[in-house]
Amino acid sequence: MSKSPQDVLSQIKDEGIELIDLKFTDIHGKWQHLTLTSDMIEEDSFTEGLAFDGSSIRGWKAINASDMSMVPDASTAWIDPFYKHKTLSMICSIQEPRSGEPYDRCPRALAQKALKYLDSTGIADTAFFGPEPEFFLFDDVRYDSKEGEKILIAKKGYFGDRLVDMATRYKADVSVIEKPWGESFSYEEIKYEIETKKPAIFAIVHAETSSGVLQPLDGIGDVCRKNNCLFLVDAVTSLGALELLIDEWKIDLAYSCSQKGLSCPPGLSPFTMNNRAEEKLSSRKTKVPNWYLDLSLLNKYWGSDRVYHHTAPVNMNFAIREGLRLIANEGLENVWNRHNTNAKKLWNGLESLGMELHVSEDYRLPTLTTVKIPPAVDGDGFRNHLLRNFGIEIGNGLGELSGKVWRIGLMGFNSSEENVDRLLNLFDTELKKYSIFESSTF
Amino acid sequence: MSKSPQDVLSQIKDEGIELIDLKFTDIHGKWQHLTLTSDMIEEDSFTEGLAFDGSSIRGWKAINASDMSMVPDASTAWIDPFYKHKTLSMICSIQEPRSGEPYDRCPRALAQKALKYLDSTGIADTAFFGPEPEFFLFDDVRYDSKEGEKILIAKKGYFGDRLVDMATRYKADVSVIEKPWGESFSYEEIKYEIETKKPAIFAIVHAETSSGVLQPLDGIGDVCRKNNCLFLVDAVTSLGALELLIDEWKIDLAYSCSQKGLSCPPGLSPFTMNNRAEEKLSSRKTKVPNWYLDLSLLNKYWGSDRVYHHTAPVNMNFAIREGLRLIANEGLENVWNRHNTNAKKLWNGLESLGMELHVSEDYRLPTLTTVKIPPAVDGDGFRNHLLRNFGIEIGNGLGELSGKVWRIGLMGFNSSEENVDRLLNLFDTELKKYSIFESSTF
Repeated sequence: MSKSPQDVLSQIKDEGIELIDLKFTDIHGKWQHLTLTSDMIEEDSFTEGLAFDGSSIRGWKAINASDMSMVPDASTAWIDPFYKHKTLSMICSIQEPRSGEPYDRCPRALAQKALKYLDSTGIADTAFFGPEPEFFLFDDVRYDSKEGEKILIAKKGYFGDRLVDMATRYKADVSVIEKPWGESFSYEEIKYEIETKKPAIFAIVHAETSSGVLQPLDGIGDVCRKNNCLFLVDAVTSLGALELLIDEWKIDLAYSCSQKGLSCPPGLSPFTMNNRAEEKLSSRKTKVPNWYLDLSLLNKYWGSDRVYHHTAPVNMNFAIREGLRLIANEGLENVWNRHNTNAKKLWNGLESLGMELHVSEDYRLPTLTTVKIPPAVDGDGFRNHLLRNFGIEIGNGLGELSGKVWRIGLMGFNSSEENVDRLLNLFDTELKKYSIFESSTF
Repeated sequence: MSKSPQDVLSQIKDEGIELIDLKFTDIHGKWQHLTLTSDMIEEDSFTEGLAFDGSSIRGWKAINASDMSMVPDASTAWIDPFYKHKTLSMICSIQEPRSGEPYDRCPRALAQKALKYLDSTGIADTAFFGPEPEFFLFDDVRYDSKEGEKILIAKKGYFGDRLVDMATRYKADVSVIEKPWGESFSYEEIKYEIETKKPAIFAIVHAETSSGVLQPLDGIGDVCRKNNCLFLVDAVTSLGALELLIDEWKIDLAYSCSQKGLSCPPGLSPFTMNNRAEEKLSSRKTKVPNWYLDLSLLNKYWGSDRVYHHTAPVNMNFAIREGLRLIANEGLENVWNRHNTNAKKLWNGLESLGMELHVSEDYRLPTLTTVKIPPAVDGDGFRNHLLRNFGIEIGNGLGELSGKVWRIGLMGFNSSEENVDRLLNLFDTELKKYSIFESSTF
């Protein structure tokens, strides 16, 4: 416990253990890289952690392994790993450790272990939480104030709208800056707004799944710190798929999901907060209004004290543990590269077929591509054709983009060259059948 | 759709389909019995609903099938069904239905179908919700009132305390009536308190897992209606295991869990409300403060409109669907009888070994038995001995009962004659080793 992270790191390297950077943060504001060691993620130790006979669980088939889901919810992202990797994943019912068993048998501890910083505290503080962690952020971090606290939200799509809805319900003093669906904010615009409006929290979506925009975040954290403002990031469609440097970018609070970059079933969300956010939470003068969402209680449950709070969805904890293991095995930077490379392949392929992409390449989102539905094409007809006859689902546009774009997801396990080739092939051969003209020209 | 429930019932009976009563309620206040038909629960249609090759998923082993968990969290309740029944249960990752697929392929719809009333509306309104649904009850049903609404809570254990904590955080005007851990309230006591205090909500725990008390609920619903009060019941440790007549008892809101009577993994909770509760919700003048917990939004998502709200934990929906199928196959009244019979066998067996039970037989809880730790016995030592050497976990007492009682759970799949025999046998042969005396007398 008294070793410095550097000491531990050297020791591990001396022992020949492979290190994998996951670049996450911890709650104590020690802005270090998350470093996974291969012994944390080694399959055998995981199997042992599950305490079962691994041989009987291997090799069984996915539901329909020929199906690809390219909708933004990455539906088959959490099917295919079974088939390809024959992993344990989320398939088995797991027990919480029994009383008398060591804490590190706890599935959440195992999952945390996979995400935690290599720091000298020995405490894993990146927590997993129930579905949609957005729902308690404002509750926990706001001060007690009759007037409501000022929250600045930069919205550029559906999930920005949702942040506004949430903050408004908490009676925050909500300011909104807005961009059309398909554009991003510049650093200068955000800086100006933060300096002018002086919010207590600045919130933005990193990867806007509704429009296909990747918001650059570099530098915003510094602006927030200079202006005494917490920096809150929705990383739902970026964690585990795209570069997300929570520490370097000085993000104070971030949440994500299990069913996109992490290739797991939906049901749990990684969530992280640092000491700045924690201080705000602990400075509250009254209890968090909702018992279930009170992080101060949850921390006691999540920590090694294990003070009973609720019965955790343990299967999901193991599923995330396994999703992280797969990422760590591949190597995080390799995963990022895979997502970028496959997205570019898709973009180039679509353009060479004469299709037009909705978002400028400067801030186009690799995990979710919005492609314009050609005017002469029956968009829903083509989508249904792909689904019914080829087992591939792509999404319709959301909100104002409904009927105007298709949304193609390449997330987690589904981001593969093979999937891109298959889809491009079908655009080439099948799309013309859904044109109102006989030819394939759009 | 225009057929009356009686018409449908007759028709189904004419077709020779077996009917199983699940006695639940629907949101429209039509106080009917829940009737499952065997075609709703037939394994083939479920397999079809999962759209996969069933043969490759059968027959694999539970983690440690020789283990029994008898702690109140029923940990292996959601392991053993795999082993014994070789069911699909919660083990596979399932997709939401794709666009263009019928709504009834939606896992939630399938699960709802299994729980819904046989009514002429054709709408399944018993909803499944995220973990620990208590957390939004007060939020949704309270009126908008600066003063806070009066809530009367009858507490007699840990989970009553928790209701008080939750309601207090919502700034309700909370009145509490209290009994020692191990006692129940009489009908007269509750009636007097409701008539005197005139609360807007009366809340009580049906099966108090901390103390082992089953609270009789008959008649309280009538008192609540006469006094313009909603009747809220925590049915966490009763649904699917013990008689719970939500309609006959005029319960307005109830919630339960997946990992006890339903023998599923933890992570989702059945929740039901009737038209009285719904009217209160719809009479709110402002939005529910928490976006995630706003039932008016969730109903749109859960209903056939399927307006996107969040990505549902679909594995868990199917798990509950499967847990309900197993109950329906056995027959709900048979399940109740099994729980009662095995509990009585345990009680008689413990008493014949000279042990003393903590709760009077009049209101003793069949799903959770509190047995006094004999003064001469090392309680933790014996618990650890059972766990380490026999794979059986029993719980320590909670709160003021810690160190004074053991808590033995017989819930869902774990409530079997075989399990009771095994445990009684071990009490007989092993307990004496943990007595501070050499003999087996306590």
